[in-house]
Amino acid sequence: MDLLKQKILSEGRVIGTEILKVDSFLNHQVDPFLMQAIGAEFASLFAYQGITKVLTIESSGIAPALFTGLLMNVPVIFAKKTASRNLDTETYHAAVHSFTRGGEYIIRVSKRYLTSEDTVLFIDDFLARGRALLGLLEIAQQAGARVAGAGVVIEKGFQDGGSLIRNMGIRVESLAIIKEMSEEGSMITFADKT
Amino acid sequence: MDLLKQKILSEGRVIGTEILKVDSFLNHQVDPFLMQAIGAEFASLFAYQGITKVLTIESSGIAPALFTGLLMNVPVIFAKKTASRNLDTETYHAAVHSFTRGGEYIIRVSKRYLTSEDTVLFIDDFLARGRALLGLLEIAQQAGARVAGAGVVIEKGFQDGGSLIRNMGIRVESLAIIKEMSEEGSMITFADKT
Repeated sequence: MDLLKQKILSEGRVIGTEILKVDSFLNHQVDPFLMQAIGAEFASLFAYQGITKVLTIESSGIAPALFTGLLMNVPVIFAKKTASRNLDTETYHAAVHSFTRGGEYIIRVSKRYLTSEDTVLFIDDFLARGRALLGLLEIAQQAGARVAGAGVVIEKGFQDGGSLIRNMGIRVESLAIIKEMSEEGSMITFADKT
Repeated sequence: MDLLKQKILSEGRVIGTEILKVDSFLNHQVDPFLMQAIGAEFASLFAYQGITKVLTIESSGIAPALFTGLLMNVPVIFAKKTASRNLDTETYHAAVHSFTRGGEYIIRVSKRYLTSEDTVLFIDDFLARGRALLGLLEIAQQAGARVAGAGVVIEKGFQDGGSLIRNMGIRVESLAIIKEMSEEGSMITFADKT
């Protein structure tokens, strides 16, 4: 997706060998017009799949997921990372290892909103080691829901998450796949395709 | 806002005396069409105020804030509740007491995205005791930004947050103000206006 790649090239900042900061438009400050374009792209890529729910994880997945849901005419669920008095006690849950934050966290989805009648599309901002998508898969399996695939805004193609998930037979569509990046001059190159 | 009030009446669940669960359309599962309508309402209420940034707190504020930003043609910033390797080290921050979760949490906004040139509109899903808005105010003050006001989806009119913030001279627009609610029969009544 050219608009996204241009944005990554002009505003992305590479820190070390693994961190790409895109907090000017994706995961801290958010560009609503870009999110709308991203939602339109996912809605088009996954059209006619019978999708009934878009599923993401708070917080950075919410913006792209929301426009995807709007344009697919289905509700969006964001899995919660923190326990709260306001969440139902009956939940599906999965442990997700975070390489960014260190340690594990639990994601939860109320049983009320995902069932075996659903066909879900996962949306997330990043795909690196694939742990967040594995967690969402586990939740979909617990619910007995069908999985249509995963829409990812930025995939770190030099890490193993993409092949891990695709090798499980899950369709993954990433709008920008980073082949290489280095802090030196904030160099970023994209893979042409998966 | 009638559409919102109807949704609260048909899907809201009252637990005890203080909890209103609206996780079927606002803060766990999200109805993107309702969020779009809410964004349009806030954009209209705060039109011609020279707003340059919409500011909210992750996660439940993101959906209404995103459509507000889209329709006002300005970026949306969500304050982070958790420290992360991916957040800038130079941040504005404020402590927020949470009655829902118990305890305090720190909200952070990178200094890169909010300055004294900005006029900000706060958006949040709930206004109860007003602590989250006080935290956002503190962050705007640290940045030297002008505050245009606060757009709130649901205000608990029977708690003191609304008067606390309005008495500080801040314009608060709530799309639904709950006057009374009780678990018995999930009874909810709205205040006509502020």
